[in-house]
Amino acid sequence: MSELLDLVGIFVFALTGALMGVRKRLDVVGMLVLSEITALGGGVLRDLVLNVPPAAFQSLGYILTPVLATVIVFFWHPHVTKVLPAIMVLDAAGLGLFCAVGTEKALTYGLNPLHACVLGVMTAVGGGILRDILAGEIPTLLYDRQLYAVPAMVGAALRAVLFEVHLQGWVTTLAAATVAFLLRIAAMRRGWRAPLAKGVRPQD
Amino acid sequence: MSELLDLVGIFVFALTGALMGVRKRLDVVGMLVLSEITALGGGVLRDLVLNVPPAAFQSLGYILTPVLATVIVFFWHPHVTKVLPAIMVLDAAGLGLFCAVGTEKALTYGLNPLHACVLGVMTAVGGGILRDILAGEIPTLLYDRQLYAVPAMVGAALRAVLFEVHLQGWVTTLAAATVAFLLRIAAMRRGWRAPLAKGVRPQD
Amino acid sequence: MSELLDLVGIFVFALTGALMGVRKRLDVVGMLVLSEITALGGGVLRDLVLNVPPAAFQSLGYILTPVLATVIVFFWHPHVTKVLPAIMVLDAAGLGLFCAVGTEKALTYGLNPLHACVLGVMTAVGGGILRDILAGEIPTLLYDRQLYAVPAMVGAALRAVLFEVHLQGWVTTLAAATVAFLLRIAAMRRGWRAPLAKGVRPQD
Repeated sequence: MSELLDLVGIFVFALTGALMGVRKRLDVVGMLVLSEITALGGGVLRDLVLNVPPAAFQSLGYILTPVLATVIVFFWHPHVTKVLPAIMVLDAAGLGLFCAVGTEKALTYGLNPLHACVLGVMTAVGGGILRDILAGEIPTLLYDRQLYAVPAMVGAALRAVLFEVHLQGWVTTLAAATVAFLLRIAAMRRGWRAPLAKGVRPQD
Repeated sequence: MSELLDLVGIFVFALTGALMGVRKRLDVVGMLVLSEITALGGGVLRDLVLNVPPAAFQSLGYILTPVLATVIVFFWHPHVTKVLPAIMVLDAAGLGLFCAVGTEKALTYGLNPLHACVLGVMTAVGGGILRDILAGEIPTLLYDRQLYAVPAMVGAALRAVLFEVHLQGWVTTLAAATVAFLLRIAAMRRGWRAPLAKGVRPQD
Repeated sequence: MSELLDLVGIFVFALTGALMGVRKRLDVVGMLVLSEITALGGGVLRDLVLNVPPAAFQSLGYILTPVLATVIVFFWHPHVTKVLPAIMVLDAAGLGLFCAVGTEKALTYGLNPLHACVLGVMTAVGGGILRDILAGEIPTLLYDRQLYAVPAMVGAALRAVLFEVHLQGWVTTLAAATVAFLLRIAAMRRGWRAPLAKGVRPQD
């Protein structure tokens, strides 16, 4: 169950990576590289900090899922672009899931709650940051003001609190993931935005 | 004492990260991410290479100091910009301290002096490089020609030499840090520059 | 023998890094940083994922070879540029060697063949990707369509197959490296290209 949810998150993040490759008119190799790094980058960074072998290199499904996503985008990307609103919803689901799973893994390895939350957020947003850097853009996360990182922070914090009161298991993780997911969806729908520093005008 | 000096270095580097966020008109999340990565990135890279859990994830102060720096820059950045010359001096102090501390830690873990110096310089300049990449700029270090990396190399080499003659402890580290600091200040004041390859004209 | 081949690969990659520094009119520090990271970045990434201390920090030759390459490019870069076609051939040799050596090392550490191939390719192309990101460019690998990554994938796969049938030792590694090398040379000569996603027009 937990593995399946993980693969869904990886698949959705991989789609956004391959689509970025199409938008930048990269070839199929570029698409695959972006897809793999978007999907697996956050988790690999988390595992490097935890000083454990990255999960992406322990299971074949983790590496093969982005291959599937790249193939789909390669042949059917106009259709994929049409369902982009649906993908944004799935991406929000991936964000929620990855922040909850990442925080839980860090807590299991004995990190204190604050550090575990930082790693949880890193799991959720690290792949997207690497994708944007590779594509030659400033990471969306830093300026889009649409509360991408904030829901991940809330989900991570909630998962850490539940862990501290000894609530564990995948239902707990799913609960924290759901809160982050709903918050992200609400932020997109209602245009909630993170503030700029005092006196700074928006870019547009 | 050593911990306090470390936090001062982190605080100053964090200020430069958050200020870069203001200059790029990023939101508060972008400011915080740049601040954390500028302050902690170099040390995390060093610890990953040393194959030990990153110090930034062992102590709460390391993660919280950039939060404080971001809050200060968020509300008072015009004032912070006014004291930028003072911050450049503090940044030089951070540079000196981080190269000395990084080299010492690497030597303690049994690396030979040359490798320890490389890691010391990486500790000092790694965060700034990551900050510039995330902000979509070529790392200042690579082209500013104002001897940013060279003082760090000298400080690291000095710390390694002192270690080889069995001089240890924080006084020794502070001595190496001070030499790097003074060299960096002198380079800024006198406009010392690193040479371009033979026959290459400056960019300006 | 294996060590010598390794140093040749590092030297050639280091040349391409230092030359990128000249093209971007960076100072000697920037040239050195690009040179070291181009030459050693891929192997360091591989070793971080394998959770072992990076080989680059175990041997002095690994760190010093890029210093030599930087000195040569610093004084004689117009001559180096003239022999660029020869360097492209040597770069293909480095590519072949690094993908075979990287895959073999990963297999030795017990990774399954697919993961070992991913790490082998990462060893071969990681340094170049980091070089391009630091220089402010989209990694050539992602868009040049000249089959840079594909020969590395083939070489890595071949090395993994040979390992599975219990063929080991440096002759086997050299065989896989040679196949990748010849494939890369053929791709350059004949202009073989990776396809773009369906319906996407080339950039030029």
